[in-house]
Amino acid sequence: MRRYFFKISFKGTDFHGWQTQPNATSVQETIETCLAQLFSNTTFSIVGCGRTDTGVHAKNYFFHVDFLDSIDEGNLKNTLNKVLPKSIVVLDVFQVDSALHARFNAKLRTYRYFIHQEKEPFLSEFSWFMRKPIDLNRMNEAAQYLIGKHDFASFAKSHSDVTNTFCEVSFAEWKFEGSQLVFEIRANRFLRNMVRAIVGTLLEVGYKKLSPDSIPEIMLLKSRQAAALSVPAEGLFLWEITY
Amino acid sequence: MRRYFFKISFKGTDFHGWQTQPNATSVQETIETCLAQLFSNTTFSIVGCGRTDTGVHAKNYFFHVDFLDSIDEGNLKNTLNKVLPKSIVVLDVFQVDSALHARFNAKLRTYRYFIHQEKEPFLSEFSWFMRKPIDLNRMNEAAQYLIGKHDFASFAKSHSDVTNTFCEVSFAEWKFEGSQLVFEIRANRFLRNMVRAIVGTLLEVGYKKLSPDSIPEIMLLKSRQAAALSVPAEGLFLWEITY
Repeated sequence: MRRYFFKISFKGTDFHGWQTQPNATSVQETIETCLAQLFSNTTFSIVGCGRTDTGVHAKNYFFHVDFLDSIDEGNLKNTLNKVLPKSIVVLDVFQVDSALHARFNAKLRTYRYFIHQEKEPFLSEFSWFMRKPIDLNRMNEAAQYLIGKHDFASFAKSHSDVTNTFCEVSFAEWKFEGSQLVFEIRANRFLRNMVRAIVGTLLEVGYKKLSPDSIPEIMLLKSRQAAALSVPAEGLFLWEITY
Repeated sequence: MRRYFFKISFKGTDFHGWQTQPNATSVQETIETCLAQLFSNTTFSIVGCGRTDTGVHAKNYFFHVDFLDSIDEGNLKNTLNKVLPKSIVVLDVFQVDSALHARFNAKLRTYRYFIHQEKEPFLSEFSWFMRKPIDLNRMNEAAQYLIGKHDFASFAKSHSDVTNTFCEVSFAEWKFEGSQLVFEIRANRFLRNMVRAIVGTLLEVGYKKLSPDSIPEIMLLKSRQAAALSVPAEGLFLWEITY
């Protein structure tokens, strides 16, 4: 058995997230179907570095899969790219130690959330449109309270099946990038819906509906109701995975 | 009567081009419907700076419309942007001399065609994917034959209703822009399908199926069959209009 890592990029608009589920097209299922097609209907179970929600994009995403024999990486990459839809691209394929796990060995995950404040027809699927002017300094002040190991239950989807809601955030910052506002956040792990709930809450700080130091209070309450509404999926990208 | 110019930008993917036609959604009809909605069902006939084909985008496009009274330009811009779909954005509204015509007074039109050579999920609606390596110098050598006033019948859609097929091209150049190949062409007017037929033909030069000096020969033949196939609409942007 030989284990291979695949680095891919996908546009989430057309998918119900990464994970295979009944009656909905997922990225995982789409790739598994294409692999089966290339390997005379062998069934493959690919293991992703994490779930992504419906509509969320990935600039860099990793999954692993085991093959009985060694494969020609470059050839498989090219052939897969020909059969996969336009919205999924294989960037790299490489063999790894068979003990390496795409999900468990991922040390850090980085997400970016994009916002544009002037209506722009070519960004609408990749960035959230929000006209209202906003105070970036206040949002950055608030974001600093996220750094460190905290219980993020207030920013997790309720009725989630996760019991441990502690995450260690090592970076959280807003900046301007061209005509867009970008929030970047890095942590060892993320809870379901966490980035979008954090962005929604930081925006309330930016609009002066919350003060920057309400962030630690919200975290202490450990209730999703304490934080603000989540922002839409179209602006969110899984940006980087560090092993 | 007061005449206003509107500068807009649109993503062409969802539209059957600019011009209103039966049984298909056009940019023109979408805007006219929104204007009627804002002005208590008054019927407006807006006049665009030119037709665009199905799926072609516009970075900058102008149309004019006459109002009985003066309007608040900034207010109309914002209100229209709220009712228009995400794929159409009003960039500017300004009053002009009532003799100025969006189509007849446009002196120069600039188009850009975008190509990406590495599969990229976020570009697929805005750029044509073409893996094969290509000789840019040859294409630029060929493009120089387009400069000047020539009969472009060989690059016009057959059965077009236009009788005069002369156009004066003032700029035609390929370059790299980031990860993309971009062709920019500027002329006083363009025939239907002309840019996409020119790009298709220049690509044949880039692939060494045609020599650069076959361009003047193709033009002299005045037959659409003399030139190569057209490239798809998704890579084409109406980029700039000069009055």
